[in-house]
Amino acid sequence: MSNDLPINKLVILGVGLMGGSLARALRQAGKVREIVGYGRGRDELEQACQLGVIDRYDLDLASAVTGADIIVLAIPVGAIADTAVQLKTCLNPNSVLTDVGSTKVSVIDAVRQGFGRLPENFVPGHPIAGTEKKGVAASFATLFNDRRVILTPLPETRAEAVQRVRTMWQWTGAKVVTMEPVHHDEVLAATSHLPHVLAYTLVDALSRLSDSKEIFQYAAGGFRDFTRIASSDPQMWHDICLANREQIVKIMELFREDLARVQEAIATGDSQTVLRIFTDAQHARDHYCKHL
Amino acid sequence: MSNDLPINKLVILGVGLMGGSLARALRQAGKVREIVGYGRGRDELEQACQLGVIDRYDLDLASAVTGADIIVLAIPVGAIADTAVQLKTCLNPNSVLTDVGSTKVSVIDAVRQGFGRLPENFVPGHPIAGTEKKGVAASFATLFNDRRVILTPLPETRAEAVQRVRTMWQWTGAKVVTMEPVHHDEVLAATSHLPHVLAYTLVDALSRLSDSKEIFQYAAGGFRDFTRIASSDPQMWHDICLANREQIVKIMELFREDLARVQEAIATGDSQTVLRIFTDAQHARDHYCKHL
Repeated sequence: MSNDLPINKLVILGVGLMGGSLARALRQAGKVREIVGYGRGRDELEQACQLGVIDRYDLDLASAVTGADIIVLAIPVGAIADTAVQLKTCLNPNSVLTDVGSTKVSVIDAVRQGFGRLPENFVPGHPIAGTEKKGVAASFATLFNDRRVILTPLPETRAEAVQRVRTMWQWTGAKVVTMEPVHHDEVLAATSHLPHVLAYTLVDALSRLSDSKEIFQYAAGGFRDFTRIASSDPQMWHDICLANREQIVKIMELFREDLARVQEAIATGDSQTVLRIFTDAQHARDHYCKHL
Repeated sequence: MSNDLPINKLVILGVGLMGGSLARALRQAGKVREIVGYGRGRDELEQACQLGVIDRYDLDLASAVTGADIIVLAIPVGAIADTAVQLKTCLNPNSVLTDVGSTKVSVIDAVRQGFGRLPENFVPGHPIAGTEKKGVAASFATLFNDRRVILTPLPETRAEAVQRVRTMWQWTGAKVVTMEPVHHDEVLAATSHLPHVLAYTLVDALSRLSDSKEIFQYAAGGFRDFTRIASSDPQMWHDICLANREQIVKIMELFREDLARVQEAIATGDSQTVLRIFTDAQHARDHYCKHL
């Protein structure tokens, strides 16, 4: 298995937005010979074939992963534990296993438990990319282009496996970095998980007001952008929130304290504090989000 | 003054994003003969002339508003009180006065105080449109197209003045509705003011973390959209938050209670509650935001 050669057999477990986009990107880059899909829903797999995203699918996991160079777990993080148990009996030691889950500590735990130990060819990964849409029909080849992919290898992970996964993501146009699993979960809790929780909570809160129907009529573009992530898959985000609950609760606690302070400043007409917070936030947002 | 005839002289006080876009829209519709700008900054007014947004500007308020059919207050809501005092001595009883402020009770109070009474030709208004950008250079003719404009006339407001302002906004492509001022402030606190406060607070909270620089590096598209409104003019939003503090504090209180409930559900692994809230929010967002 050389890092320069294209992938001979790529197996995608869960051919949705992420798995489908990875398949498309590698196909477009000319870096994969055969792409096999596996999943629980035959319809989605049929559709993936018809769209040309995968070459074929296999409803039997053991036969799907046979002879695979790389196997990508692109299923919800809540489903990884079960799949890991099944994979234990059929994973070839030459196959590299990776995932695209939004949390890393929980995924590593799930794989460790499923296998009874951490497979040395398992490379935990998370591409920082996505849209609020789901399903293979929403997948596209450039999803990862110029985006970051975080790999969180462990002491037992083979360097060659990490390099193989790194190269795969680089072929999609992504920039690959490595990080400690816990630190990944902290960072993503702040930049991704918390915003999703806030968007869901805001829409839910407003929708339970007695005049919610009227209220939403007067929402404009700012509200649309702000709440776009509340159109994301609820099951997927439920899984993420429970999987990364420790870090999410920590950052929510901090945010709620800050929000209470802002409310107090508004309530008491503390002009200076309100203006300072808004100004600092605008500067930070303009400074850091230039590259987004 | 007939409602069918174009506006002979339109005066825009504050030629920024909103005032500039209104001028452009009416010009493009062929519904205005002369557009005069007034403001405190000569540079912005010069730029507005160069861009063809206004025909000329006048740094003297009394001379600017002489013979105006319609005068539009497009300045920050915090600046309306001072301008109202100045307008008192020079407003012609035939001129219709309106505004574009994001809060209505405070603007009405400011105008009432400035004039010593509520002018019967004053029509409080608020176009539900905007972007996170500011200044005349960011203005464009279609900003109000298909957007809603809320007018909040009072018992003393002349029906003819309301009709004149309604027609003006319809010429820009907007849909005009009327509402009680307090109800306007309630609705906008929920759909616009609260989201801005949340976005500012989130960016500020994250930017004060010790590893904020790194954290923002891993922000992706969802974060960019979610925090876009935190790039809005801090002074303008400071003004709005203090002007509408009563309604904003009320809705913040409600939101913070909901957020505490969501945090509790995540912390305790209350799967059912988390999934229900996220699912309800997704349905509401998809249902109500279709038209946005």
